Amino acid sequence: MKVNGRNYRSVWMEENRVCMINQNLLPFSFEVYKSNTVSETCFAIKTMITRGAGSIGAVAAFGMVQAINAAQSDNILAYCDQARKQIESTRPTAANLFYATKRVYEAIKISKEHAINEAHAIADESAENGKAIGIYGERLLNDGCRILTHCNAGWLGLVDYGSALAPVYEAYRKSKKIFVYVDETRPRSQGGRLTAWELQNECIPHAVISDNAGAYYMSKRDIDIVITGADRIAANGDTANKTGTLEKAIVAKYFNIPFYIAAPTSTFDISIKSGKEINVEQRQAEEQIHVSGLSPDGELIEVLVVNPGSGALNPAFDITPSELITGIITENGIIKPSRYSIEKLLGKVKK
Amino acid sequence: MKVNGRNYRSVWMEENRVCMINQNLLPFSFEVYKSNTVSETCFAIKTMITRGAGSIGAVAAFGMVQAINAAQSDNILAYCDQARKQIESTRPTAANLFYATKRVYEAIKISKEHAINEAHAIADESAENGKAIGIYGERLLNDGCRILTHCNAGWLGLVDYGSALAPVYEAYRKSKKIFVYVDETRPRSQGGRLTAWELQNECIPHAVISDNAGAYYMSKRDIDIVITGADRIAANGDTANKTGTLEKAIVAKYFNIPFYIAAPTSTFDISIKSGKEINVEQRQAEEQIHVSGLSPDGELIEVLVVNPGSGALNPAFDITPSELITGIITENGIIKPSRYSIEKLLGKVKK
Repeated sequence: MKVNGRNYRSVWMEENRVCMINQNLLPFSFEVYKSNTVSETCFAIKTMITRGAGSIGAVAAFGMVQAINAAQSDNILAYCDQARKQIESTRPTAANLFYATKRVYEAIKISKEHAINEAHAIADESAENGKAIGIYGERLLNDGCRILTHCNAGWLGLVDYGSALAPVYEAYRKSKKIFVYVDETRPRSQGGRLTAWELQNECIPHAVISDNAGAYYMSKRDIDIVITGADRIAANGDTANKTGTLEKAIVAKYFNIPFYIAAPTSTFDISIKSGKEINVEQRQAEEQIHVSGLSPDGELIEVLVVNPGSGALNPAFDITPSELITGIITENGIIKPSRYSIEKLLGKVKK
Repeated sequence: MKVNGRNYRSVWMEENRVCMINQNLLPFSFEVYKSNTVSETCFAIKTMITRGAGSIGAVAAFGMVQAINAAQSDNILAYCDQARKQIESTRPTAANLFYATKRVYEAIKISKEHAINEAHAIADESAENGKAIGIYGERLLNDGCRILTHCNAGWLGLVDYGSALAPVYEAYRKSKKIFVYVDETRPRSQGGRLTAWELQNECIPHAVISDNAGAYYMSKRDIDIVITGADRIAANGDTANKTGTLEKAIVAKYFNIPFYIAAPTSTFDISIKSGKEINVEQRQAEEQIHVSGLSPDGELIEVLVVNPGSGALNPAFDITPSELITGIITENGIIKPSRYSIEKLLGKVKK
């Protein structure tokens, strides 16, 4: 997708370097972070230089390639197993991360080359999935449609095209008039920073709102549909996504507004029966207490925004029960969030 | 209530000066703003140096005193009518502002002294109302109770004691173990700044959470009750309060958690039949796009936190329908949010 008119992916590899758009600096400055080692790659995931299920998956896969390159040939599996554990410890809730590391690790058992190709395939598939999600999801957006989205499930999070934003991009390409309400998404403000930046680069009309204002616009019937991404979807359709997704889903249900999840099939984790089994990451209070922003001097600095003597609690995700989800938009079509539909979808994929 | 161990009210008068704690500088620095003229007082309300229904009412009443003091004796009513209009134009949704200016204006028709006493009575009553709300509301809080509150409905907003926080203070005085989840309340973060600061000064255990995290903690059954303030309550119990209140009310209903409004009787406006008739103030996008915070050098500065090319929408309030409200805690008891109960309450008050 476009950055100042030039096409980019969010993640790619240059020789042994894992390259990624530094999402912590956006939208204030556009820089590419280049990781030389598995440890640097882990650092990039952990500190959210890269984020979003698809991008994390691709970076994790490329991190496994770095491990392959660094390993002694007589010791490759043990060395990569170690690297895999290190990578998997960075973000415990992200299903795609585990999916990617596992896929590359299994490929190593065949050959080094096979594993490297597998890592590139993971990144390419993420991009292709985004494109397909856009084509299916676009049908849900009527001309004049006003969409609410939470956090960033755009191309920055999915290598290319995006998940929740892919239908928006597709609708815009088809010249439909659309408008996007962008939840700021505190504490890290991925909506106000990344989604807003993506939409501006693609010239799509939008406005940022505080996370508090969704219900207000829904009550006024100014929102026709809610679409968010997902970090992990359980066998029964319960969905882990950025904190606040559950709030929007409950509010949308109250106002009878359709609420969709858009996610590639790799986000499903049917080893997890329901949302109750999903381990929700608690992130550091710091993220809530300090905010990074551009100073009047044009410097990116951290400022204290909360009473310094108070503690903060910062759950990274919440779990939206399937009963609140109208449908899940995948690269293989739109399905109901039920065990049956999910099993059918995954059966189709395995063919 | 306490500031570093010393007792304060949020608003008071010294000769012709309207004094108020500068809430825009809290929690980073504690300063008293002293207004010398009606225009400066209007500026203080408009720029939210003072805020909260009760404090706005007291400041508006004291602003009317400044008008009385400035008027020629042969022209006092016409001059004060002008000042009243100026004061009333500052914040269109705040019922207490109109209540206060009207009460002082009517008193001028009797005498200047009567009007000045009336203004002081308005401030004193606000404080007394807070105390009474605390006594009634405390009964709702069991030992071990975990409370969620949105925005700041503490003593800073009600001259003394507060509305939503008054029951919390009373429960703490009765040695009940309580814990308060404090919604940050973007875009102005009155929760993370003012409520958190108040609670810290009173040594009450609490933590700030992002506005997105309420549903997460409710889903985990970590919240037993939600209490917020109100800016205006219609004849049928529909309530205007800080944007996000509606979200919390819908989410609390979904999880069967009691949702209470705490507000003095002056907040009721039975000239308004339902929430549909309440005019919701749209504030400037700037509040959403820039955040003020303490820099690493200890300076209070504004930083840009949202993609600069994107617009923002910033409704100041939302309307919570009465069907979502368990009860309204007033200085005259706890009532159901129904037309009958409200009329009965107001009849009782008029006796």
